[in-house]
Amino acid sequence: MKTSYKFAVVLSGCGVYDGAEIQEAILTLLAINKAGSSYQCFAPDIYQHHVINHFTGKEVQETRNVLVESARIARGKIKPLCDFSASNFDILIFPGGFGVAKNLSTLAFDGSNCMVNSEVEQAVLEMHKANKPIGALCIAPALMVRILKGATVTIGNDKETEVTIVKMKGVHQQKLYNEICTDSNYKLVTNPCYMLDSNISQIEVGATNVVNALIDLVN
Amino acid sequence: MKTSYKFAVVLSGCGVYDGAEIQEAILTLLAINKAGSSYQCFAPDIYQHHVINHFTGKEVQETRNVLVESARIARGKIKPLCDFSASNFDILIFPGGFGVAKNLSTLAFDGSNCMVNSEVEQAVLEMHKANKPIGALCIAPALMVRILKGATVTIGNDKETEVTIVKMKGVHQQKLYNEICTDSNYKLVTNPCYMLDSNISQIEVGATNVVNALIDLVN
Repeated sequence: MKTSYKFAVVLSGCGVYDGAEIQEAILTLLAINKAGSSYQCFAPDIYQHHVINHFTGKEVQETRNVLVESARIARGKIKPLCDFSASNFDILIFPGGFGVAKNLSTLAFDGSNCMVNSEVEQAVLEMHKANKPIGALCIAPALMVRILKGATVTIGNDKETEVTIVKMKGVHQQKLYNEICTDSNYKLVTNPCYMLDSNISQIEVGATNVVNALIDLVN
Repeated sequence: MKTSYKFAVVLSGCGVYDGAEIQEAILTLLAINKAGSSYQCFAPDIYQHHVINHFTGKEVQETRNVLVESARIARGKIKPLCDFSASNFDILIFPGGFGVAKNLSTLAFDGSNCMVNSEVEQAVLEMHKANKPIGALCIAPALMVRILKGATVTIGNDKETEVTIVKMKGVHQQKLYNEICTDSNYKLVTNPCYMLDSNISQIEVGATNVVNALIDLVN
């Protein structure tokens, strides 16, 4: 029986307010490595929606590229998402952060009417077609609902996002930091991470539980 | 007996090639939280030496601020290093990354003749004067040698950096990813982290061992 799996990890920048949530991303990579599996990071080669000064919380007049900034998390070892092929991986996973809602989609601005980056959509649909598991943390589960019709997910207990998920014909389950939501039909595993008021150890628990549940779902 | 300690964590940007090594920084914060202690991140409010595109590895014509970029790792919860006072903390720790050698000092350019950022130097000397423990990961131990004369540290087994440390009148001990070097005189604990060809789980082990050893050194 195979015990080491190939994860593709999709990042959306580098920093919670305009990119990937760094702690969720790093602790996902840690959980994958600790499970004896391997990872390859990907990100779309596109401009960020905007750049937020994370010290002041204010938008600044700069342009940054999602792939280039995501490379900081991956220590340079990252590929453009256009190079992703489901045939090369066992599991696909999305850490969270506003980058998911601002760069990988227009969720932060258009809610239930959001558009999704075509490379992200294609990666998810390819994995689903191949009957391979998909994981999503934090706000990323809402994006999965936009792609996988009728999917059941958790984003914790945020009322506004719950309404958005239901408007997109998704099903929402409230979960705590250590609990996962599994949609067996879509082989989709989700966890709230920083959608809850968590600490860094709780993020590690959430990310680890998702990674391990995904491994259990591989055929 | 007190079991929860206040850590000050000094960051040097956000990204291994021009700032703080993100994995080392996050796994230091994780280790502190798991040990039941608390942390406050700090960074100097200065420009980075330069900006490296982490996808191509090449320098780009941008200016970024060390405090502002470090705030990405800290999710905005960070203070300028000028606000640091040893009286408010039990332990001081420096994750690594080229930012330590390019932003917190000129080590990357001037080797054993390097200058050290005055706020960094003052923070380290204040802690030493107060007989409080100091931790340093990756390349940061070399910086400690420049500040704390004759200190014993490890940066793993990199020959060139060993020579630099000895030129600065420091003592070097070769260590593996899971081993720490403790200088009892200075209450200084160091570990090589990504100065070795490690994986992310090994970084967690190194950072955790340093954090726990520092806690044991608190009076």
